[in-house]
Amino acid sequence: MRTVDIIAKKRDGRDLTRDEIGFIIRGYTSGDVADYQMSALLMAIYLRGMTTEETLALTEAMLHSGEIVDFSDLGRPRVDKHSTGGVGDKTSLVIAPVVAAAGVLVPMISGRALAHSGGTLDKLESIPGFRTDLSLAEFRSTLEGVGAALIGQTAEIAPADKKLYALRDVTATVACRPLMAASIMSKKLAEGASGLVLDVKTGSGAFLKQEDDARELAQIMISIARGLNKECIVMITDMNQPLGRAVGNSIELIEAFETLKGRGPNDFNTLCRELSAEMLVMGDAAADTDKARAIYDEMIESGAAAEKMRAIIRAQGGEPRTLDDYELLPRATLQQELPASRTGYVQSIDTEAIGHATMLLGAGRARLDTAIDLGVGLTVQARIGDRLEHDSPLATVHFNDPARFEEAAADIRGAYTIGPEPVEPPALIKAVLR
Amino acid sequence: MRTVDIIAKKRDGRDLTRDEIGFIIRGYTSGDVADYQMSALLMAIYLRGMTTEETLALTEAMLHSGEIVDFSDLGRPRVDKHSTGGVGDKTSLVIAPVVAAAGVLVPMISGRALAHSGGTLDKLESIPGFRTDLSLAEFRSTLEGVGAALIGQTAEIAPADKKLYALRDVTATVACRPLMAASIMSKKLAEGASGLVLDVKTGSGAFLKQEDDARELAQIMISIARGLNKECIVMITDMNQPLGRAVGNSIELIEAFETLKGRGPNDFNTLCRELSAEMLVMGDAAADTDKARAIYDEMIESGAAAEKMRAIIRAQGGEPRTLDDYELLPRATLQQELPASRTGYVQSIDTEAIGHATMLLGAGRARLDTAIDLGVGLTVQARIGDRLEHDSPLATVHFNDPARFEEAAADIRGAYTIGPEPVEPPALIKAVLR
Repeated sequence: MRTVDIIAKKRDGRDLTRDEIGFIIRGYTSGDVADYQMSALLMAIYLRGMTTEETLALTEAMLHSGEIVDFSDLGRPRVDKHSTGGVGDKTSLVIAPVVAAAGVLVPMISGRALAHSGGTLDKLESIPGFRTDLSLAEFRSTLEGVGAALIGQTAEIAPADKKLYALRDVTATVACRPLMAASIMSKKLAEGASGLVLDVKTGSGAFLKQEDDARELAQIMISIARGLNKECIVMITDMNQPLGRAVGNSIELIEAFETLKGRGPNDFNTLCRELSAEMLVMGDAAADTDKARAIYDEMIESGAAAEKMRAIIRAQGGEPRTLDDYELLPRATLQQELPASRTGYVQSIDTEAIGHATMLLGAGRARLDTAIDLGVGLTVQARIGDRLEHDSPLATVHFNDPARFEEAAADIRGAYTIGPEPVEPPALIKAVLR
Repeated sequence: MRTVDIIAKKRDGRDLTRDEIGFIIRGYTSGDVADYQMSALLMAIYLRGMTTEETLALTEAMLHSGEIVDFSDLGRPRVDKHSTGGVGDKTSLVIAPVVAAAGVLVPMISGRALAHSGGTLDKLESIPGFRTDLSLAEFRSTLEGVGAALIGQTAEIAPADKKLYALRDVTATVACRPLMAASIMSKKLAEGASGLVLDVKTGSGAFLKQEDDARELAQIMISIARGLNKECIVMITDMNQPLGRAVGNSIELIEAFETLKGRGPNDFNTLCRELSAEMLVMGDAAADTDKARAIYDEMIESGAAAEKMRAIIRAQGGEPRTLDDYELLPRATLQQELPASRTGYVQSIDTEAIGHATMLLGAGRARLDTAIDLGVGLTVQARIGDRLEHDSPLATVHFNDPARFEEAAADIRGAYTIGPEPVEPPALIKAVLR
């Protein structure tokens, strides 16, 4: 078998066999297949597609490129949630403590900010002392001790995915459904969860802008889960505007903390509640989603979820008092409100541009090795359908470097389309697929 | 400008600007654009195509990635010929001395054997002492002294093409018309020729199997030449069977020597004559192609072409007596005839398979760094339309390693389709485009 022949086969639109896919992924993991060959193949896959069978074979090859964690001896259901990424998406920071507080184990492997999207790991690292680089042994003991653990991808878990993810980012092959599906599923199937709730985002701030593409990705992931005997539910959710109000790192963390205390923004709290409800049913903590929603509310109102978050932070080396004293977190030194400068209704928001503006302020990365500023970000004030006056605020910008403010501010203003017609806000949850 | 955005633009089927193409080629030459980004872009170009404007911009960017030789001070027309590559194609070895003997300068930069196709440089290096790695100063002095010089691509000439050529070979992006056109034309426009005769091959042994694709490549190259004010003629020629009888290195060289002495196979001599005639007209040595054909015949019959070949060999450090004593060349120690084993007419020949079989014997390269065996090869006996008896020879195999013989022999037998119906041989010259 020769790599160049396999590239040519996909280039010509033919299906690769399980053996060919295995050969490529083993070779890429070991270094026998060069980055420049893999990127040519990735582009051919992007443009020619992959069948569900090919995607399943790719997922399995990536899954078996490293260790597969087995937590079945813990004797309790283990449910994780994963999102395809967006702007202001901080649901993991609420869902993990809520679901763990209700008695379901949550082993969670998260990512970092990349392109215009935020990353759970960066948000957590706003907490002084918080370690996301636990070993697999520490991951297990934290999960066992407090019921949830939130870590980054280790060298042992799906190393092929780790290399591919970095390569896709610099070769314009990110937004490809079979590659996204294999990347998400190989990591998630390796982390020891017995069931998965997936949040596939669609809209102007998502990687997949079209709802049809999001649905197709969802169906591929459900097929993969079925093929590998894992429970899986997919929610298709709106990313035509930032989720919640906060976009950044420490300011998103604060919004998550507020939500755990029952003071979160309505849209964000609703999504956390719906995703948690599916996880609680999947984890046998509730008979149906109505009962599960009640459990969610109870965990918030009783303070059990907030207390669980303190326990998770403590277990992972962080300062649990941050939950109660936000002054302990990194904060931007400067704030400025951006006024609308015209009257009308918010017609649409280019949410990817909002994400890019936040990145420009220093909250995100242009490359995997970029250092980020954890304190900067936005508080979004105007949302789709809102009626604005001339001086109504679009957003408040939190920044440290005045030189970066102007460019970000121009991008944020440019992201808003304001017009005379009233507009219906988009539905937050578009579908639940099982 | 960011490389990843340019890749994404081509991936989405949009046209790249001249500035974007320049940015990429400068970056790739300097190393700022990584191989893995370039190969993703190459695959996107392969699958999405390029307009003539883009291809012209690419050619110019590659041309200007290195030195451009200027021989205009030599005061005489300088004409080169280039072929897109095939099996048994040794025309350069006849054309250069014939055209130079008739007073037209021939500055020729050739390639090496790659994939299933042979390379002029390897054939020339069968001559003891012959140097193809002349410096640009030596290239000039040889051209001035003997009227022709045959060298390999130097580090100074189109370095972007040199890197791209190697990358395309290992990423399944060779047979792409705009990339082929830019590669050929950037090299040829850098070498100081005032006019070009291009031989675009089509058929089972060519990189472009379909005549339509060959015609399209021809048109692109003519447009590029026009855009850069170079005279250019393209001949579309048949590569559905090996050209001439000999396939290999020293045995092809011997066939070229025999042709210079008026004893070449008919098809091969005809193609050399037609290509030379176009070059002689372009180089102002003949008023029309009829007169030019007469000059070709005269150069052969008078011995002037053979004498010019001796002068070229001498000037480039080789042993000129090889032209008269073939025992001075590398020869294979073993020979075996392959019988047809069934009666009928040769319907078709998978010429790429013939090329691969020769490569298996050791005559070609699987990678750029493979050492080759200059003595091995084939003498093709059965051609399309030939009537074969059960024991008629298909080809004579010249080999050194009996272990390699069987596999090559099986491939050669498999390359022949023999059937009961008489078949018309394919026309050698399909079109001349100006």
